[in-house]
Amino acid sequence: MTDYRLKCISCEKEYEPERSLYYCQECGPLLGTLEVIYDYDKIKIGHSFSKNAGITQFKDLLPVNFQTNMDSFVGGTPLIKLRKIFGTDEMMIKFDGVSMSGSYKDRASIIAINKAMEYGFDTIFCASTGNAASSLAILSAHTRLKTYIFVPSTIPKGKLVQLIAAGAIVLPLIGTYDEAFDISMDIGLKKGWYCRNSAINPYLLEGKKTGAYEIIVQNDYKVPDFCFVSVGDGTVVSSLFKGFMEFERLGITDRMPRIIGVQAEGASTLKKVFEKGKPYTPIEEKVHTLADSISVGNPRDVIKACKYMEKYEGELISVSDEEILQGIMMLGSTTGVFSEPAGAAAFAGYQKMMGDGRIASRQSVCLVITGNGLKDIHAVENAVNVNNYKKEEIYNILEGGLI
Amino acid sequence: MTDYRLKCISCEKEYEPERSLYYCQECGPLLGTLEVIYDYDKIKIGHSFSKNAGITQFKDLLPVNFQTNMDSFVGGTPLIKLRKIFGTDEMMIKFDGVSMSGSYKDRASIIAINKAMEYGFDTIFCASTGNAASSLAILSAHTRLKTYIFVPSTIPKGKLVQLIAAGAIVLPLIGTYDEAFDISMDIGLKKGWYCRNSAINPYLLEGKKTGAYEIIVQNDYKVPDFCFVSVGDGTVVSSLFKGFMEFERLGITDRMPRIIGVQAEGASTLKKVFEKGKPYTPIEEKVHTLADSISVGNPRDVIKACKYMEKYEGELISVSDEEILQGIMMLGSTTGVFSEPAGAAAFAGYQKMMGDGRIASRQSVCLVITGNGLKDIHAVENAVNVNNYKKEEIYNILEGGLI
Repeated sequence: MTDYRLKCISCEKEYEPERSLYYCQECGPLLGTLEVIYDYDKIKIGHSFSKNAGITQFKDLLPVNFQTNMDSFVGGTPLIKLRKIFGTDEMMIKFDGVSMSGSYKDRASIIAINKAMEYGFDTIFCASTGNAASSLAILSAHTRLKTYIFVPSTIPKGKLVQLIAAGAIVLPLIGTYDEAFDISMDIGLKKGWYCRNSAINPYLLEGKKTGAYEIIVQNDYKVPDFCFVSVGDGTVVSSLFKGFMEFERLGITDRMPRIIGVQAEGASTLKKVFEKGKPYTPIEEKVHTLADSISVGNPRDVIKACKYMEKYEGELISVSDEEILQGIMMLGSTTGVFSEPAGAAAFAGYQKMMGDGRIASRQSVCLVITGNGLKDIHAVENAVNVNNYKKEEIYNILEGGLI
Repeated sequence: MTDYRLKCISCEKEYEPERSLYYCQECGPLLGTLEVIYDYDKIKIGHSFSKNAGITQFKDLLPVNFQTNMDSFVGGTPLIKLRKIFGTDEMMIKFDGVSMSGSYKDRASIIAINKAMEYGFDTIFCASTGNAASSLAILSAHTRLKTYIFVPSTIPKGKLVQLIAAGAIVLPLIGTYDEAFDISMDIGLKKGWYCRNSAINPYLLEGKKTGAYEIIVQNDYKVPDFCFVSVGDGTVVSSLFKGFMEFERLGITDRMPRIIGVQAEGASTLKKVFEKGKPYTPIEEKVHTLADSISVGNPRDVIKACKYMEKYEGELISVSDEEILQGIMMLGSTTGVFSEPAGAAAFAGYQKMMGDGRIASRQSVCLVITGNGLKDIHAVENAVNVNNYKKEEIYNILEGGLI
């Protein structure tokens, strides 16, 4: 663990870390999300990271002491490099579907769990569209923490079953993710449980930024020209900005990639806020997309994401559910990376920008694929038609050379 | 790649490797499975392996040259160590559910794919209960190989959807795995496609043995007292024997673990053959278990598995579907490892032997969990009941302290 302070993303007031301090007391939970800040001049690190190791190797850039048995199994996910594919000479796929719970959220949950233990909490809770919840449940199962999970009852089966198998106390709400979020905040804070809610807990982003670190390390310290990631609450995309920014600030790299956040057309609230311009003002909408992980109508990290987008010239684009679905199939059949819908949104966004002639083939591209397709097979299942065959039919088809 | 020869498991006749040589020409496909043999005196390796690296680090003990872009993302899965749990002081869980396709089969498929490319094939096929197929489809997707998959139409949805997303040509048979196997052999060999069928292809076991290597390396070169693994065709359990044996033979370790193969009560054909004794004679049965990956009534690696069991004092036990289901939940809620039914059979087998007083608490235990629970959520889904709640109900439950 490195010394750190917390700073309000809106009024820039600084705070010393405290047991139950989650957001700026003056700006409130939505405008006053806190960011972890370090004295970068005091941090001395070089190009000595391992391509295979997990997030514990970044302990000098993180605000926790690792103490659980699962710490070493978070991060260190594949960066798959493919040449001359999808129109680009150099494609990288950062695939966090291969992780303990099958999503990028493991990086955040492990930090929250360690923080809860450091502060002596006995219970931890979160509201989630599914992935944050299953990562929290799976990574906390072996600890002494009791885990409460608030999810919309529309959560995909795979994620729900993961939660139950991991022994969490699950409370599926007949309502939206945004409603589950509000209820969890109300009850959880009153009960004095530790809060692992997106954007509220300032430490989550610190875990997530390690994805950016790993992209750089696994790409031999070269910075990709573009980096595509799906956007819901805005925390993951913010974390990528911060991770790349810190490596540049520390002299490990000499520039930032161009970061493109991809939303579903039916759930592009954050994009609307960003495009409306300053002062960034949170709005709330009814949203709908098959990409459940980014089906967010009241994004909790909207201010942070917009500020990063502005400062580092990022961009937000949106893709249709149809494009996402086609993205799953094309990405899977060409690379073997089987992505859940939200993850494939990043790929669909890349295809859109490439189709618009905005990326040159010599520019390197990194897709951040945030979740495993096995978490939500329903989407693909409905989109394809598979026949079952009798023995004779298989012979006829293959001997007739019909497939 | 290291020099190697192939040796018949029954008559011990030796062969030079050839493009389409799969089994002993004198003993046939069931009795005459071939094993890869090396001149161990010529192999010089020490204790220099990495705990995080994938299977390519074992290239001096493998019969292939790695040439695909996925090679580095196979193996290197977590060995989760937990102390004083489930009655043992030292528990290790080798979790291959965290891998590109979510199962142990990735270790075998990547070898077959590299071999098919080395020999210049343009098509590869396999029959599978699901995991071998999805690993083959996912790992071959980025190569020039065309992939044909023969599965029983009862394949769990998660595995089927993985296959389709990975762009494989899938032929679900209205029939059993054993029937799909026979059809695939008949058509695939006639067509001149490369065969990635369990036990038939002698190189698969070589990939799978790396799981044993990794257990040793990740446990600081200490040998666990017991190693539990589920058994269907008998290839994975044979591969563990071979991996541990080779490390002992090379002086890296000084003993073997006690290996316990666990079958489902409704599909314990291999156990029956072993218990009937020598000469081991393959039989064929109708089987039924919810653990689809080990639902095998005509085990293809029966001779090899029985010979290893005999030579190294292994043991085969069986557990009920009910015990497997309880195993998934207990393993998940206590450790966070979410296993598919077949994987949890290993845990259920451990619990049974522990319950019988056959394992002392000071003895170290390794469970090999071969597949991710997300691959077959149906089993767990049916075993649990989750209510959805209205907002007021959640308040009542939590404020009333009812959960």
